[in-house]
Amino acid sequence: MTAPDAIVPSDAVGDATRDALSSASIDTPTTPLGIVCGSGTIPFAVADAVRRRGRQVVLFPLRGWADAAAVDAYPYHWIAVGQVGRFARLANQEGCRDVVLVGGLVRPSITQLRLDWGTLKQLPLIVRSFRGGDDHLLSGVGRVFENSGFRIVGAHEVAPEITAPLGPLGRHRPDAAVDEDIDRGFALLAAMSTFDVGQAAVIAGRRVLAIEAAEGTDAMLDRIAAMREAGRIRLPDGVGVLVKAPKRRQDRRFDLPSIGPDTIARAGRAGLAGIAVIAGATIVAEPQRFIEAADRAGLFVVGRPDPEARA
Amino acid sequence: MTAPDAIVPSDAVGDATRDALSSASIDTPTTPLGIVCGSGTIPFAVADAVRRRGRQVVLFPLRGWADAAAVDAYPYHWIAVGQVGRFARLANQEGCRDVVLVGGLVRPSITQLRLDWGTLKQLPLIVRSFRGGDDHLLSGVGRVFENSGFRIVGAHEVAPEITAPLGPLGRHRPDAAVDEDIDRGFALLAAMSTFDVGQAAVIAGRRVLAIEAAEGTDAMLDRIAAMREAGRIRLPDGVGVLVKAPKRRQDRRFDLPSIGPDTIARAGRAGLAGIAVIAGATIVAEPQRFIEAADRAGLFVVGRPDPEARA
Repeated sequence: MTAPDAIVPSDAVGDATRDALSSASIDTPTTPLGIVCGSGTIPFAVADAVRRRGRQVVLFPLRGWADAAAVDAYPYHWIAVGQVGRFARLANQEGCRDVVLVGGLVRPSITQLRLDWGTLKQLPLIVRSFRGGDDHLLSGVGRVFENSGFRIVGAHEVAPEITAPLGPLGRHRPDAAVDEDIDRGFALLAAMSTFDVGQAAVIAGRRVLAIEAAEGTDAMLDRIAAMREAGRIRLPDGVGVLVKAPKRRQDRRFDLPSIGPDTIARAGRAGLAGIAVIAGATIVAEPQRFIEAADRAGLFVVGRPDPEARA
Repeated sequence: MTAPDAIVPSDAVGDATRDALSSASIDTPTTPLGIVCGSGTIPFAVADAVRRRGRQVVLFPLRGWADAAAVDAYPYHWIAVGQVGRFARLANQEGCRDVVLVGGLVRPSITQLRLDWGTLKQLPLIVRSFRGGDDHLLSGVGRVFENSGFRIVGAHEVAPEITAPLGPLGRHRPDAAVDEDIDRGFALLAAMSTFDVGQAAVIAGRRVLAIEAAEGTDAMLDRIAAMREAGRIRLPDGVGVLVKAPKRRQDRRFDLPSIGPDTIARAGRAGLAGIAVIAGATIVAEPQRFIEAADRAGLFVVGRPDPEARA
């Protein structure tokens, strides 16, 4: 471990500063927003939305995950997973105080981690995070950033316009029978949510066809398509719904569900009637292409009210 | 629809007879046991165990599902799915009153059903069964048999020796960390059981890696192997447990979970440490080969106490 990453060690930001940062309002963004970018297009959608609101952004793409071609359109600094010290130094130089963590990040192996000095000091916390479910991993990483003096904010907080709205998106609508499947699906996800798993499931005709765990939504949808093809699921086309929700009581700053044009393509191949998500708590990637794809495929997409929304 | 199947219509057995049959004890089997056979080896294991207890059996293999070569060792009559009238006539001729439904039966398509007169009269019940989850399908089919004057008994009731015993099976044992995963897995299955889904899941290091729905246990285990290979799950080999349980409050006469030598092979390829099931409520196919395979693969197999057992 070399010295450079420890130039601004995490404890250089004192408690008083941290408290002041915590109470800063998102509505008055005087500092550029730091965006730690995993894979996919969503980090750039967040960056664009934040810039449209008049706030500057600095990207911190994760080496091996973020799209190298796309980062060129923004100020950026590459970091490796585990380089909290390097991140803290660069983000401080850029004047960032708020940080968004967004994009895909399949649980990295220990050998993929580039641990630096700033991270090493928090190793016990990180090791604990690695032991639990995904929630623990992400919120553990979040705590490491917060311990370094940054405030973690949710993508849905800095750019609510990138989340699914309440009601139908596009021109198709679920019928009453599908509404029942949607209710059943969300109830199932709620029942499982204390197990830190299951942000998605497929229900058709009251029957649960698939539940997502470590494989992810894409693989789950592909499984439905394969089971239909093999005759293991015998249903007419255009039946069934993908339900997707944030886990209950989860810190939404770390792992909001997302859907995009590719979700439509896979749901279509799975023979589903549509997709139901939680309004305001689901990121829609490339919304224009997404809605066009849904309309063309004949799939409904509907945002249901958030059961955890504050009144 | 032709007449022959209606020779002994379902209502030929009156209520008085049915009540008398229902109170007959399994311990005094004066009549041969009818075994409606789906796919796999388990129907024959049940037949052999029942014969060893001194009771005669008559097999009713389901065309398209049952193993045609294996039925030759027993008295048998082929039937098609949906031919309740034909079954009732033949079973009455054979003097059967108790019937076991056992073996694999992937939800058949409507066009695979050979509906006969005895079945047609109960079509509304069958259609209702087809709409719900698997429980509804199987218990619906069971009610059709019972309406025809037969008593449905569970394979675990007529041949308890074919189910997993309490404690370890074979020579390997789960360690304390795996015990926690087992507890977590059974708690997850219990939480999902009101949704008529999820008789199995894979847990490793407190993390839920996969949950079974329509794809079945084999496909779920193969998914774990594929995710490990693709680097989506990063765990050393020999970590994680397959938990399998009957759904809560389900009528166990219809769909008891089963494990066999093939389960060991797939769990081994998935890199798991072992398998946990509910004692007395899980059928073990080919127990000799099963235990040898587990010992050779280094996998533990453990039967946990039945949370629904009557004291």
